[in-house]
Amino acid sequence: MSYNTFGHMFRVTTWGESHGPAIGCVVDGCPPRLKLDEADIQPWLDRRRPGQSKYTTQRQEADRVQILSGVFEGQTTGTPISLSIHNTDQRSRDYGDIAERYRPGHADVTYDRKYGIRDYRGGGRSSARETAMRVAAGAIARQVLGQGVRIRGALVQVGALGIDRARWDWDLVEDNPLFCPDPVMLGQWEDYLAQIRKDGSSIGAVVEVVAEGVPAGMGAPIYGKLDSDLAMAFMSINAVKGVEIGDGFTAATLTGEENADPMRMRDGQLHFLSNHAGGILGGISTGQPIVARFAVKPTSSILTPVPSVTRSGGNVDVMTRGRHDPCVGIRAVPVGEAMMACVLADHLLRHRGQAGT
Amino acid sequence: MSYNTFGHMFRVTTWGESHGPAIGCVVDGCPPRLKLDEADIQPWLDRRRPGQSKYTTQRQEADRVQILSGVFEGQTTGTPISLSIHNTDQRSRDYGDIAERYRPGHADVTYDRKYGIRDYRGGGRSSARETAMRVAAGAIARQVLGQGVRIRGALVQVGALGIDRARWDWDLVEDNPLFCPDPVMLGQWEDYLAQIRKDGSSIGAVVEVVAEGVPAGMGAPIYGKLDSDLAMAFMSINAVKGVEIGDGFTAATLTGEENADPMRMRDGQLHFLSNHAGGILGGISTGQPIVARFAVKPTSSILTPVPSVTRSGGNVDVMTRGRHDPCVGIRAVPVGEAMMACVLADHLLRHRGQAGT
Amino acid sequence: MSYNTFGHMFRVTTWGESHGPAIGCVVDGCPPRLKLDEADIQPWLDRRRPGQSKYTTQRQEADRVQILSGVFEGQTTGTPISLSIHNTDQRSRDYGDIAERYRPGHADVTYDRKYGIRDYRGGGRSSARETAMRVAAGAIARQVLGQGVRIRGALVQVGALGIDRARWDWDLVEDNPLFCPDPVMLGQWEDYLAQIRKDGSSIGAVVEVVAEGVPAGMGAPIYGKLDSDLAMAFMSINAVKGVEIGDGFTAATLTGEENADPMRMRDGQLHFLSNHAGGILGGISTGQPIVARFAVKPTSSILTPVPSVTRSGGNVDVMTRGRHDPCVGIRAVPVGEAMMACVLADHLLRHRGQAGT
Amino acid sequence: MSYNTFGHMFRVTTWGESHGPAIGCVVDGCPPRLKLDEADIQPWLDRRRPGQSKYTTQRQEADRVQILSGVFEGQTTGTPISLSIHNTDQRSRDYGDIAERYRPGHADVTYDRKYGIRDYRGGGRSSARETAMRVAAGAIARQVLGQGVRIRGALVQVGALGIDRARWDWDLVEDNPLFCPDPVMLGQWEDYLAQIRKDGSSIGAVVEVVAEGVPAGMGAPIYGKLDSDLAMAFMSINAVKGVEIGDGFTAATLTGEENADPMRMRDGQLHFLSNHAGGILGGISTGQPIVARFAVKPTSSILTPVPSVTRSGGNVDVMTRGRHDPCVGIRAVPVGEAMMACVLADHLLRHRGQAGT
Repeated sequence: MSYNTFGHMFRVTTWGESHGPAIGCVVDGCPPRLKLDEADIQPWLDRRRPGQSKYTTQRQEADRVQILSGVFEGQTTGTPISLSIHNTDQRSRDYGDIAERYRPGHADVTYDRKYGIRDYRGGGRSSARETAMRVAAGAIARQVLGQGVRIRGALVQVGALGIDRARWDWDLVEDNPLFCPDPVMLGQWEDYLAQIRKDGSSIGAVVEVVAEGVPAGMGAPIYGKLDSDLAMAFMSINAVKGVEIGDGFTAATLTGEENADPMRMRDGQLHFLSNHAGGILGGISTGQPIVARFAVKPTSSILTPVPSVTRSGGNVDVMTRGRHDPCVGIRAVPVGEAMMACVLADHLLRHRGQAGT
Repeated sequence: MSYNTFGHMFRVTTWGESHGPAIGCVVDGCPPRLKLDEADIQPWLDRRRPGQSKYTTQRQEADRVQILSGVFEGQTTGTPISLSIHNTDQRSRDYGDIAERYRPGHADVTYDRKYGIRDYRGGGRSSARETAMRVAAGAIARQVLGQGVRIRGALVQVGALGIDRARWDWDLVEDNPLFCPDPVMLGQWEDYLAQIRKDGSSIGAVVEVVAEGVPAGMGAPIYGKLDSDLAMAFMSINAVKGVEIGDGFTAATLTGEENADPMRMRDGQLHFLSNHAGGILGGISTGQPIVARFAVKPTSSILTPVPSVTRSGGNVDVMTRGRHDPCVGIRAVPVGEAMMACVLADHLLRHRGQAGT
Repeated sequence: MSYNTFGHMFRVTTWGESHGPAIGCVVDGCPPRLKLDEADIQPWLDRRRPGQSKYTTQRQEADRVQILSGVFEGQTTGTPISLSIHNTDQRSRDYGDIAERYRPGHADVTYDRKYGIRDYRGGGRSSARETAMRVAAGAIARQVLGQGVRIRGALVQVGALGIDRARWDWDLVEDNPLFCPDPVMLGQWEDYLAQIRKDGSSIGAVVEVVAEGVPAGMGAPIYGKLDSDLAMAFMSINAVKGVEIGDGFTAATLTGEENADPMRMRDGQLHFLSNHAGGILGGISTGQPIVARFAVKPTSSILTPVPSVTRSGGNVDVMTRGRHDPCVGIRAVPVGEAMMACVLADHLLRHRGQAGT
Repeated sequence: MSYNTFGHMFRVTTWGESHGPAIGCVVDGCPPRLKLDEADIQPWLDRRRPGQSKYTTQRQEADRVQILSGVFEGQTTGTPISLSIHNTDQRSRDYGDIAERYRPGHADVTYDRKYGIRDYRGGGRSSARETAMRVAAGAIARQVLGQGVRIRGALVQVGALGIDRARWDWDLVEDNPLFCPDPVMLGQWEDYLAQIRKDGSSIGAVVEVVAEGVPAGMGAPIYGKLDSDLAMAFMSINAVKGVEIGDGFTAATLTGEENADPMRMRDGQLHFLSNHAGGILGGISTGQPIVARFAVKPTSSILTPVPSVTRSGGNVDVMTRGRHDPCVGIRAVPVGEAMMACVLADHLLRHRGQAGT
């Protein structure tokens, strides 16, 4: 059972509530003698951090990660790595009235139904704050994968506004707070999100994550498929409602001729002439880039009152004031990258154990 | 590690190759004293069985399931239930040349890269024949869930042809071999698939599965989310490239106002006024119907030659003769239902263990 | 949860009741391209088989193992290996009255209390017949470990009669049905067991299993210790009540000076000058032989009536007629070897995945 | 894979090195709405704490536990409970030379062989300091089990000096720092241990743990047996070399007549007339007290020089100065209790999920 753990050989267990004293995670299974200190993790956390632009929540979270175990003299030791971030900015007053009122679209109501109790402050355990620890674990996963594997994410759709792939520019992605790869669309999104923010509304988005340099043979049939594990990983991110690999739902509209990825030998190496499959066949990596996307719903924290109910069984209309993201999909980009890294690190270690005789 | 196992409390381990002596599964964790004999399983297998219409492969698989353990005097005993189906129709001659040639879009190449060996007959372990055991396990899962939970699937899109939800008729689904819920679309699909078959081509599809009567509180944060487990389960089905819950990718296009599911008390009970969430919030069931869809790519077994390579590193053009499905999405409908049933049974048992004091 | 599965990378799931149609297991995680056919497994089963001497039960079990999947052209493929043995000798009449009467010392009463139902024929799932599949899985584990690792077991104590280690002779072990390594004690045990049999009684025993050639570094702190896993594995064998590693309980009587295993370099290699530790320090193998013992209680199937109760709540005196082992510890020797082999194979695969960068 | 995790439904993951900034654990799966604050945990830690008598190490560890998540307003919420203890007394100078020298009987050499790196300060991860977190987790497990289950441990043997069970006095156990239940033996042990300490030597011991009030039906065949899990749990404690349930190794010397636990109905309830089985039959609890023992080897930290080797491959004689336990078995008593509590809590939650329909 792994309610708060994911991965098998590279295992991440997260803990912590939004407004508790700290959040943290334990990364178990990291191989020994990898270089690691806080400086290898902090930049990835900074990348995810809110307060970086007007498009994400204005909360200032210092998010200083601390390594508490598993590292000795700058190297991993093979023992569990404990990471922790102290919660410093906890304006509990913002969240007082959600103790009694269920925010539509939030997990308030289901947590209460399941557990009969919940830490309502800032969403408690259901807060996206938990994803900071995914990003931290992802930084360690990148160390496991090494320089040969490159994992990058981008926002490819905001509301109905999708990018033009012909204009894809990875350098641009790192250069704008929306992780937008399309210089033309960037401007449109900025305008659109400014309006969304002004309206006190929110909007959904689609994130794409690409992993290059993944060797062929990662993943395993039948229930250890690389795409199954990616689907689970992405779907576990807050607000995600859909996952696709390669052509994804578009593949449903294609014929076998259109969807086939032809192969040819070149210089003694197998080459695929296209990548509809997104780098995975039969649950196993082909050696091509792994391409995945996931859909993020709009946050339900909006200024428009929505019919809801109270904990004690009354009707109420709920609107959410306070500091919130107009498009939570933006901050999901580094989280998606981190989940990709963790899944790949896990499969790399599995593969080493399993393969060969 | 669960390469051939899925589930935690309700665990299914499948085994078997397409053209080996048999396929089977072991269902571990089924509660005791549930009524069970072969007659509870066989009808679900018959529903999936190929050879039922001209739209699915013409192979005749008897698929007679046998219970080898775990049942005593017509009741489950709490010990593992072993199920087996003998492989009877194994025309190996159809598959001889795929020993050397990698079929584009198949797992031939990745299995070989991973394992350095594969049982190429009929696709071996990567054959969709494995899904028969999922359906069998799903029949046991239905016994665990009981009469109160109703799980039904339908085909909602073939190629670009999607149904009109206003015409949805569950009775029709059971009455046509395409599991089509839309009487108008049914005819169009029949014509379209006849053409696809005539062309020796294939086409993708989208399957929808709905579970009604699921109590609130199933599932668990953060990595035991009901939707995460469904995503993993569906993505593990052969040829599936995308999964969505509730509004899925459409949610990316919505504002918070559009996507919110308002709540109201009625007769002392909480009611949701819409179900964009697909019955799951924060990874936990709301009590509304669970709604999920998955995209099935077109099979790469087509008559058009596609550039490929041989095992020994040469170039070759591959076309696939023999008995194949023009739309493998059709047969994925009962498989999708079964996976939904297994995931829900697993979460039901987890929930019993976890909840309350 | 692994009620009927053990191991992580090398996973064995067993199923089947004593008097059902068959018993079997699924071995998942076996690396590809290992030589394997039934002839690699059958000799180990024959070694465990009852009916070989007057000291074990006279039931004739053919125990012909069949490989149903995971092997292609004499080699493993990396997919799950399904093994099955048909139950042929099922004299149900011998066991009829245990439906109602709980045999003292058997699991009859606890199965009924837990499940409210049990397959009472021949002990059902609690029968030692299940251990045949452990032996079969152990044969595959030996293929994983390769020729370099040698696993042998012996009986070292029957009742109060312990062997003299100065007379230990491994060749003798393979040459007598009691797996006795001491030529002097062999005669004494034969006489003693003849008397036990004549009295319709039974007696306990101690089994020792030794693994040579295990490389240093297998196992892992803190809850993946090699000795922890061995303890679990041995304790899961029917009738086992105690497990020890190296000096075991004797270590409790030693001083630090007596218990220390001194080390010295010889020819550039580390050598231990003694092996009180049984080849494991901190849960990790040292490179010395792994030495483990387990205590097997006497079977409660005896001719002397013992006070008991009935299923419906009455008092009754129970004696067990029929074919039974005077010393079930004898047959536990090959089972102990098999469990050692499975645990080591599992740790070998884990180690490959975990180690190095 | 669970190198640093144990349990399935009630899962404990520990982290931390002896001389790192902190040690801690994450308890996942604890049911909601149980009363819990630091005051429920601290007394159990104090009971284990070194420095309480001259028979245990004189290090002063404050061992103040802090709850970082999973508890809200004094109640568990069903989310993971993170516990942490800061390491305050870290006299690194005591341990400097073990960086290069392998202490015989310690895990120094195996950690180095496995990982190629180790945090040698105070034993790093292999230090018994890790057991503090087991005790903390055990305190939470006791909350899960409730008042009806009583778990107590005692020291029953020091070296060759075993207690007389006829004099067993549980009140005495709580009243002396050796956890001795026998008033006569207490004096002998005090004298003996004073001598051991004076000699700079160490001695082994045997710990017994008893759980009363455990309902029948806990545990599960075949590889989820209660005794298997206890064996794994106890064997995972530092320095433990043997585990037994009920009569344990003595059962090997008994006949079936001697070992049988007769049953009788009394007032409509099943009663066992003896408890050779230690409360477990077929891996499932009988409702009688669960009785287990484990053997603890003498610590290898002694003043007598023992031949050893250095990291760089030279010969050296090693003696250990500093603050150490003459009998580490003493401090293992609360740890054994805690492991029993955790295993039972885990099985209680499993049982709730599994049982019934």
